[in-house]
Amino acid sequence: MLKLPALDPSTAEERRGSGYPEPFKSRMGDRTKRRLGEACGLTGFGVNLVTLGPGGQSALRHWHTLEDEFVYVLEGEVVLVTNDGEQTLSAGMCAGYPAGSKDGHHFINRSSRPAKYLEVGNRVDGDTAFYPDDDVMFIETENGIVYAHKDGRRY
Amino acid sequence: MLKLPALDPSTAEERRGSGYPEPFKSRMGDRTKRRLGEACGLTGFGVNLVTLGPGGQSALRHWHTLEDEFVYVLEGEVVLVTNDGEQTLSAGMCAGYPAGSKDGHHFINRSSRPAKYLEVGNRVDGDTAFYPDDDVMFIETENGIVYAHKDGRRY
Repeated sequence: MLKLPALDPSTAEERRGSGYPEPFKSRMGDRTKRRLGEACGLTGFGVNLVTLGPGGQSALRHWHTLEDEFVYVLEGEVVLVTNDGEQTLSAGMCAGYPAGSKDGHHFINRSSRPAKYLEVGNRVDGDTAFYPDDDVMFIETENGIVYAHKDGRRY
Repeated sequence: MLKLPALDPSTAEERRGSGYPEPFKSRMGDRTKRRLGEACGLTGFGVNLVTLGPGGQSALRHWHTLEDEFVYVLEGEVVLVTNDGEQTLSAGMCAGYPAGSKDGHHFINRSSRPAKYLEVGNRVDGDTAFYPDDDVMFIETENGIVYAHKDGRRY
């Protein structure tokens, strides 16, 4: 049994589900995450171990204004979708998304078996994300940040 | 052939060697790094793919004042050394080192085959590191940051 600062990922809580409103939430499919960075007490960046079942998506296709993101495929195969189209990433391949690069990205698992990957993102106050393919955005309200349609109506 | 934002790590430059002064530099042994985050254009944090040969070390045992660090073992086996002693981490295990936690840490490869791991660290201005086991420290000079003995003499 490992002790902190070491961690066996299987001991970190497995979380299912998404904060997206419907109909987006359901699109994520069979996706679970273990928050490894948080389990180790990190605050400067997050590291999640994600298992993405067949048909699942890592996220809506999106880009961040202020936060860098990085993904490393551990098992299986995922399709990376960006402005330029699709690329298949197998185990051992990676991708990095610089903050402010307006190239929306996400993974889709089009294979018949689960894929596993690490996702890393730093934490920057004031960051937001945009979704080029979907009618959803963040708006800042006096009660916090909420999801809205692109015309401002709340979900 | 993957195109950015996707990256095949084998196409990132393999760097050997260390910035430490001797006798510390030689202790790192057979260690190579590929700077995956940098190759993807990331600046908020670094991600290195490290191959550590038998007898090699990830770094001198150290801790950071302002930067979080995270490591995930991909292949082989490494020994994590911290204030509390040693733990063996095999593939699929990880560790996280919160900024400011005065628990010096490093990996040693005591096995007979290479180990591979990802190391992640965010970038924070003013960060420094301390080395509990070794007579080495950073000092800030008018010409930049240099390695020194703990009494201030430069290396």
